Formats: sequence, structure tokens, C-alpha cells
Amino acid sequence: MWGALSVKRFETVAIIGVGLIGGSIGLALRERGLAEQVVGVGRRQISLRAARRVGAVHHTTVDLAKGVAEADLVIVCLPVAWIVEHVRAAAEHCPPETLITDTGSTKQSIVEALDDGLPRGCRFLGGHPLAGSEKMGASHARAELFDGRMAILTPTRNTRPADYDRLDQLWSCLGSVVVQMSADEHDRTVALTSQLPHAVAVALAGMLPESCFRFSGTGFQDTSRLAAGSPELWTQIFALNRDHVLAALGLFEEQLAALRTAIQESDRSTLENILNKAKKNRDALGN
Amino acid sequence: MWGALSVKRFETVAIIGVGLIGGSIGLALRERGLAEQVVGVGRRQISLRAARRVGAVHHTTVDLAKGVAEADLVIVCLPVAWIVEHVRAAAEHCPPETLITDTGSTKQSIVEALDDGLPRGCRFLGGHPLAGSEKMGASHARAELFDGRMAILTPTRNTRPADYDRLDQLWSCLGSVVVQMSADEHDRTVALTSQLPHAVAVALAGMLPESCFRFSGTGFQDTSRLAAGSPELWTQIFALNRDHVLAALGLFEEQLAALRTAIQESDRSTLENILNKAKKNRDALGN
Repeated sequence: MWGALSVKRFETVAIIGVGLIGGSIGLALRERGLAEQVVGVGRRQISLRAARRVGAVHHTTVDLAKGVAEADLVIVCLPVAWIVEHVRAAAEHCPPETLITDTGSTKQSIVEALDDGLPRGCRFLGGHPLAGSEKMGASHARAELFDGRMAILTPTRNTRPADYDRLDQLWSCLGSVVVQMSADEHDRTVALTSQLPHAVAVALAGMLPESCFRFSGTGFQDTSRLAAGSPELWTQIFALNRDHVLAALGLFEEQLAALRTAIQESDRSTLENILNKAKKNRDALGN
Repeated sequence: MWGALSVKRFETVAIIGVGLIGGSIGLALRERGLAEQVVGVGRRQISLRAARRVGAVHHTTVDLAKGVAEADLVIVCLPVAWIVEHVRAAAEHCPPETLITDTGSTKQSIVEALDDGLPRGCRFLGGHPLAGSEKMGASHARAELFDGRMAILTPTRNTRPADYDRLDQLWSCLGSVVVQMSADEHDRTVALTSQLPHAVAVALAGMLPESCFRFSGTGFQDTSRLAAGSPELWTQIFALNRDHVLAALGLFEEQLAALRTAIQESDRSTLENILNKAKKNRDALGN
């Protein structure tokens, strides 16, 4: 698809945070010839080394100011609670008029904080690729991580169409299906599709008595897999999208209570209806 | 392991119900040379044909009496609600003194009904291999399905040691780790490890609005995968293990409520504790 477009390459892309997502973006940018230079910025040498080793970046630095100095695109791929301050810091040190985006899985609070007022004509446009894994770090990065996945962009009325088009094209080139949403709509959606299953997996894994570990098979493993994700990262995500997460949890608790009541009252037809509806939904989601 | 034992082969094993589990047992018995003859018994020609096609059985029949007539082992691999009546029917028609077992995922009500009083000296010993998939039918059968999985046997004080040893050896030869439990202990355990995650996956899949389907990624898919299982099968399982399932759901609801409260009250340290505990448990379960 992207071969047919006239793609404007980036000179220098600075990726702040070269974990799984940042590393995979770097790999994909390089593999697809979308950037002349990819610079990785991070706090810890061990992460930067991993990013260099897998070929996700050309250069790395722990000095954010140096890392973004020549960037014509900055992508902040950090845990959500750190994004706002790093976008602001990047805007202080990158060339004037630079476009800055992120990959954070909550958007409303980030977009609100950064929608205008960045120094030196820099602009922020929020993004969120719906891709990832419970595995962390650039050593698990893959250029194909975004292939066929959704990438959400959350423009506001302050967003310049040219900036939107630039990121739309970028994510399309990375293989994603780009969707535009308001930050609020994004947060309500991912509360249901991402944060709710995470919460459910956490509750499930957390309650299993150790004596039962060896009796848990692939079903328990699948259902609880997300609980292996980073507690630090998810503490931030739940905090930043608190209201929508609580609403999603409320809906889930109602649904589970309906199932419990049907079991309790041996209400076979309601039970079958619930199981049939769930199967229909799940079958529609593919493997 | 089983190569080193002196394994007593079966002459004729009758498998009643040749779906995923029955078909996989048949395949494994044949592949490992554990039975001279494997006979598949089923209600529907289409299932029996699938079992023959994958090589899970030598012969098939829709006539239970004929199917078990020469069996020295009968394995009932049917949905749990049908097991008791089919064990009784098999006992009427198989040779005297035949050992009959099952693979049902609930045990207490089945074992209670069949523990003594089978006609003509036939004996029932309950079993449950902790293996399976949301995919059904003999066409998905695999001889390796039980490799490295637990197989639970639920003897009672009426069980003859020789019968137990026979099934212990059978499941060991199929690659399983055999564990002995009371039927009640079994039911309490699988309520937590199997039926609870199923209920959770069903509630999760069931509540997702259609407009969100395309935003659900691998995380939602993993967490809700079990909901693709057979509604008919699971209606039976929830009904037959009602009390233990309700207890497990109660524990889960408490755990989820604790997580919700921590998010609601922005209680970061409790939230982190919950997430850390869940990660520790989940990491211990492997992939």
C-alpha cells in the first residue's frame, strides 16, 4: 500500500523511550526506509544498548536535548504518566515547528495538557497504536508489530491537517489501519478493549491459590496472560483513565453478576443465552 | 517413560464420544500401540467419519451396545450431563467386569451416581485430563494433546487398586502427569482453574459493544478466548458444579472489587500491590 504513495521521508526521527513500542517503530522505520536517521533517547544504558543491538536505532543518547536537536519528528514512547513532561522537554530542545507525537494508551489528559502552548511553534498530535505484548523491552521489538493493527490519532480543532496527514501516512507505512477519534472517545473505547481485560486478568491471576497453580491449563493461562504486564505501567494507566476504567468495570461486574445469578438460580435458558451471546461476540473477533 | 514400564496393552478400547478429547485419546492409543482395537461410538455419522478420517479409531458405530460388546476398557468422553447414563448403558452391554472411565470436567455428581451398583461387576473410576481447546471435534484431535498435562483420577474407597493402576498407567502412557484427588477436591480445584476463567471470559466477551470489536487486540482476544467454547457444554458444566463455581465467582468478585476500590480511591500503593501479586502469580504459571 505505502509503496504506491509518494511518501515523504523523515530526515531524523527521535524516539524517546526505546522499549517494545519505540524499538518496534525504529525497526519498522529503518526497514521500510522511512527515516534517514533514527535516534533513540532513554534513561538507561541497558535499554539503549538493547535498542542498538536489535538495530532499532542508528544512535542513542541519554541526553534528551541532544537526542531531539535535529529531529523533524519526535515520538514519545514512554509510560503514560511521563509523556507530558517529556513532550514539553522535547519541544524546548528540538528544531522550531517540529511535530511531536506519542504512543500512550490514554489520551485525554495528555492531549489536554499539550494541545496548545508548546514553545517555539512545536505541535503535539496524540497517537496510540493498538499493538503490544506483555513482553517488554527493545529486545522483543519487531518491525511487523503494527502490521494490520489499528493506530488511533486524536486530533483537536487546533491540529493542522498537514500534521495529521503526516502521521496518518507514517502509521499507514508501518502497516497500521489509521483511525481518527476524539481523545475522550479513545479513552472510553480502550477502557473497554484494553484496560478492562487487563483488570480482569489481574484479578484472576491474583486470586489463584498457589496450591492450584499446577492445575491451571491453557485456558487459565490465556485468560490471565495480561497480568504479566508491568505493574508500574498499569498503575499509571489505571490512574490516568480512572473514570472510563471504573465505568467499564461497572459494566463488566453487571454482566458477571447476571451470569452468576443464572448459575445460582439454575436458570438454564438465561445461562444459555449469555453463553451464546458471548460466543457470537468472541467468534467475531477472530483468533 | 512408558517405554520402560511393562505396559499391559488393551485388546479393545471403546471410546464413547469421539470429539476433540475422545479423538485425541484414540489417536494417542493407536500411535503408541496401547490398544489392539479402538472403537468409536457416537450419535452422528459426521463425527464418526471425522474420527475415522484422522485415524483416531479403527471402527465406528452409532450402536452403543455393539460398540462396547468386546471392550476391556470403555472411556466415556461426552459432555458432563450425559456421562452417567452412558456409563450405565455401557455397563449393560460390555463384557462382565469391564472397567469404565470418563473424561468429564466435573466429578462429584458423576462419581456419586456411579461409584457402586453398576451391573455385571463393571466398575467406574472417574478421570479428567486437564487438556482441551475451545476448538471442538475429532478433526482437531492430536495425539500429543495430553503430553505434559495433568490427568486427575478420583478413586473412592470402593476403587480396586488394580483398576486405579490400570488408568494411572494409561494416562502416563498418554504423556500425562497423573494426580489422585477426591471428586470434591477436584471440583473445587477446577472451579478455580477452569470454570472461573471461562465465566470471566464469557462476561468479558458478552459485554463488548459491537462498535468496539475492531479495537480489540491480542489482549482482549486472549482474555476472552474461552468464550468461544460450546454454550451447550458449558451450561452443563456450570450446572453440575454449581456450588463450587459460585464460590469461585464470589472470590473473584471480591478480588475485582478490591482492584476497583484502589482505582476509585487513587490508592496507588494498594493498586501496585495488587498488580505485583498478580504478576508474580502469572509469571509462575509460564506461557
